[in-house]
Amino acid sequence: MVDVNSLVQMWVRLLLVVTVCLAKKSLKGTRPNIIIMNMDDMGWGDLGHNGEPNRETPRIDQLAAEGLTATSMYTAAPLCSPSRASLLTGRLPVRNGFYSDNLPGRNAYTPQDIVGGISADEILLPELLSTANYTSKIIGKWHLGHRSPHLPLERGFDQWYGSPNCHFGPYDDKTTPNIPVFRNDKMVGRYYEEFPIHQGESNMTVLFTSEAVSFIHEQAGKEPFFLYWAPDATHSPTYASKAYMGGSKRGKYGDSVRELDAGVGAIMDALNATEQSNNTLVVFTSDNGAQLISKFDGGSNGPFLCGKQTTFEGGMRAPGIFWWPAVIKPGSVTHQVWTQMDLFSTSLEVAGVELPNDRFLDGMPLARSFQHPELEVLRPVFLYRGDRLMAVRQGAYKIHVWTWSTPDHFLVKGIDFCPGSLVPNVTTSNATNHTNQPILFNIEIDPSERYPIHPSNPTYQQQVPQLLAIVKKHEDTLQKGTPQLNWCDDHVMHWAPPGCEELNKCLPAPPSNPTKCYWDH
Amino acid sequence: MVDVNSLVQMWVRLLLVVTVCLAKKSLKGTRPNIIIMNMDDMGWGDLGHNGEPNRETPRIDQLAAEGLTATSMYTAAPLCSPSRASLLTGRLPVRNGFYSDNLPGRNAYTPQDIVGGISADEILLPELLSTANYTSKIIGKWHLGHRSPHLPLERGFDQWYGSPNCHFGPYDDKTTPNIPVFRNDKMVGRYYEEFPIHQGESNMTVLFTSEAVSFIHEQAGKEPFFLYWAPDATHSPTYASKAYMGGSKRGKYGDSVRELDAGVGAIMDALNATEQSNNTLVVFTSDNGAQLISKFDGGSNGPFLCGKQTTFEGGMRAPGIFWWPAVIKPGSVTHQVWTQMDLFSTSLEVAGVELPNDRFLDGMPLARSFQHPELEVLRPVFLYRGDRLMAVRQGAYKIHVWTWSTPDHFLVKGIDFCPGSLVPNVTTSNATNHTNQPILFNIEIDPSERYPIHPSNPTYQQQVPQLLAIVKKHEDTLQKGTPQLNWCDDHVMHWAPPGCEELNKCLPAPPSNPTKCYWDH
Repeated sequence: MVDVNSLVQMWVRLLLVVTVCLAKKSLKGTRPNIIIMNMDDMGWGDLGHNGEPNRETPRIDQLAAEGLTATSMYTAAPLCSPSRASLLTGRLPVRNGFYSDNLPGRNAYTPQDIVGGISADEILLPELLSTANYTSKIIGKWHLGHRSPHLPLERGFDQWYGSPNCHFGPYDDKTTPNIPVFRNDKMVGRYYEEFPIHQGESNMTVLFTSEAVSFIHEQAGKEPFFLYWAPDATHSPTYASKAYMGGSKRGKYGDSVRELDAGVGAIMDALNATEQSNNTLVVFTSDNGAQLISKFDGGSNGPFLCGKQTTFEGGMRAPGIFWWPAVIKPGSVTHQVWTQMDLFSTSLEVAGVELPNDRFLDGMPLARSFQHPELEVLRPVFLYRGDRLMAVRQGAYKIHVWTWSTPDHFLVKGIDFCPGSLVPNVTTSNATNHTNQPILFNIEIDPSERYPIHPSNPTYQQQVPQLLAIVKKHEDTLQKGTPQLNWCDDHVMHWAPPGCEELNKCLPAPPSNPTKCYWDH
Repeated sequence: MVDVNSLVQMWVRLLLVVTVCLAKKSLKGTRPNIIIMNMDDMGWGDLGHNGEPNRETPRIDQLAAEGLTATSMYTAAPLCSPSRASLLTGRLPVRNGFYSDNLPGRNAYTPQDIVGGISADEILLPELLSTANYTSKIIGKWHLGHRSPHLPLERGFDQWYGSPNCHFGPYDDKTTPNIPVFRNDKMVGRYYEEFPIHQGESNMTVLFTSEAVSFIHEQAGKEPFFLYWAPDATHSPTYASKAYMGGSKRGKYGDSVRELDAGVGAIMDALNATEQSNNTLVVFTSDNGAQLISKFDGGSNGPFLCGKQTTFEGGMRAPGIFWWPAVIKPGSVTHQVWTQMDLFSTSLEVAGVELPNDRFLDGMPLARSFQHPELEVLRPVFLYRGDRLMAVRQGAYKIHVWTWSTPDHFLVKGIDFCPGSLVPNVTTSNATNHTNQPILFNIEIDPSERYPIHPSNPTYQQQVPQLLAIVKKHEDTLQKGTPQLNWCDDHVMHWAPPGCEELNKCLPAPPSNPTKCYWDH
């Protein structure tokens, strides 16, 4: 109950701040189409408008120029599956259960061989949008469980074209991950039909794009739609279609980005062609920071510290572009601290669906801020690694109560979540508890997290007690969800998904042998 | 003579590449007004359009949106005075003499107490532009010598409003540098008339801006003008006027940036108001990368490694915006590798002045590329620290034949040119010779210089011999200028500049005692 009260308090504060805007028409229940474009391991710094020096994302940059850039947009976790689960539930992984408690602070990597999936106790965004007659479609990577009853069509989506899992296994052989592709409840192919993965050639982005364009055309003039577009070409091993291979100055990774940029362009063109632009909210973001362990074949987090797997800015600051021509002023910018969990609350808000009142929601509705991006809204955002709260951002400030970069046993293997970076006492290779004297950064002045504010500084003495009180309240009132990522079983992967027999694409599965998962970072 | 031949060869190659463009009208001798805006220690990453997260440079971003962004624009030196000397002579410091050879590879800091100034053998841009009836004005920091015969009006400028030297001394007391302000050949005031420097308040940006606006109005309808606008508010200790203090999310440094951004806007507005926009080439750049030793009070080099004083990208990659509405397509981008020495050749080109043929010029004319930014022009750019060639960039590649970050005796004092960064074998705290096995980066894929290409890689084996041959030819044919920064004398500063008596602002000067300068980094 305390959690719900906190939420109410937060909204009351927000409403007070926005009293100024009452003159403007409320966007509640305006029922636009909603498109959430969620990239895979794409970094904040991969976009031209965020300073990528090769400027290879003209269509995404155009989206920003015509819309609103949220410069401080956070994911709910520094890796794929929990981040995606949070976007669709509006709740932190530690609440919605998409974490492991086998080892404290470990990132539960991917539910590739997880026995379960997103808990039946959770309510997903498409389930709620269906009550407002939205037609929901997911295109691309799901990643919230890959066996019944955890599949997209069982969790509120009306249509699905894509993959249940990530790039990891099952493999045809040692070098070729060959992910099944589903259309709704049936397998229709695998990712790399013709091309071994090491060549990096796959048509999946072409297919994910044309699928989106067709859907937009089909839905024109009907009830509103929710399109969750989640292509995964930028996840290692990256891929592109033949037409895009070698076209980027940035190498293979850049080829993937360029093709996705063209995909964004094709979707925007489809909205224009079907005259749905003014009636569609488009959000562009990514599930976590760039995976720097991929080195040449990974993305960029721009000026931010470290990458995927960490709770530094490079791990959890994501692109945040919002486009809705009827509502959002072109070229606007907000410095409010937003999270992808806000997309859940915001989608329900504009769809006119009441927010669930039986659970704590970590997101807040943003529609008012679309009209008034200049408002200053103070709210804390909690940055977790696994089940451990590592850091909190509020306003200009961020405290690290724990720090952890790359475990030593990874470093010796040449795996580094923070290549080229070393900030003493901050990029610690062991999980380090700073609760007694947190590391404080002014993230607006020092977005690269290089210059901790000294404890003798008055700013430190003012901010840290406030932020520690927020941490304490959060932890005292937190109701943890049952961890869903504790049990692994190699047998569970999609060796033999529905339809594989017809395609002659079933793979031999190993025997079932559930074990407690060991996540080693 | 070999040098001149090399130059001719380079141009021939350029001309071959641009044969395609012959259809377009040549810009040679079109005689536009020329405005070069040269910031002081402002980093590439300080601009919103280069990804500064707080997005506080709307007018500079607008300049880029309406013009051409050169993403790979280099300075000729990683610090103020040699960089500025090169811009105005079109030649590397090691050629034009703006270096010291007292200790190899030392950056000759600033000619604050230098006996001499830019050599009489050098020809400066305004001297040549005057032959085409340009009226030339410098506003802001000169830094090429601060005693006669080295002052701006003695080196081709018709008008001057600003300071001869940098923020360093002479000081009224230990805390207040109080730089003299000149109007033409006479002192008219000092920088901090009312406000101690530690408060960071000065009206100089207001004055530098209104001076520029007045000049633009005065020159309308007359012969073309050359305005070299060189405000220095972003040089440590940074300053802003009262109206801008505290307005930035980025702290004091950000206040300076915001005021300069408004200054850029005022200049652009003046061009529009006087209907000179179509007839004016505006260039926006900075003299070197952000000075990271200033920490909270310094700028940002975005994704680039290290800062001022180094030959990593953070030291020498500068903003490069070119605006000329009659010629340049809005929102265009070039990836050609340009240097500020190109501004010399380009200004002469569009002014219709023949390039000097009695000396080697390091710059090349760019006007064709304004019309065809997509052209690929292969030319080497040499990155020096003091008199030592450290690195070469050509196309996508950069080799470091020497590396050096911060000397150990600086590090122990907490001075760090590369805070938060550590790239093994690259950010070496000792000057390290890699000539036998240079460090190679693909700077397009890896702009942060994190992932050296392994010597066993075919790319390494193809690129490095070519680049080493370029280094050898460069060094074999180099005709070094006589070093101008070898002798220092505390007496030489502007203790008693012309006019100080009338203002009662002469300071007592120490006795003359010339010594060989010792530059310790």
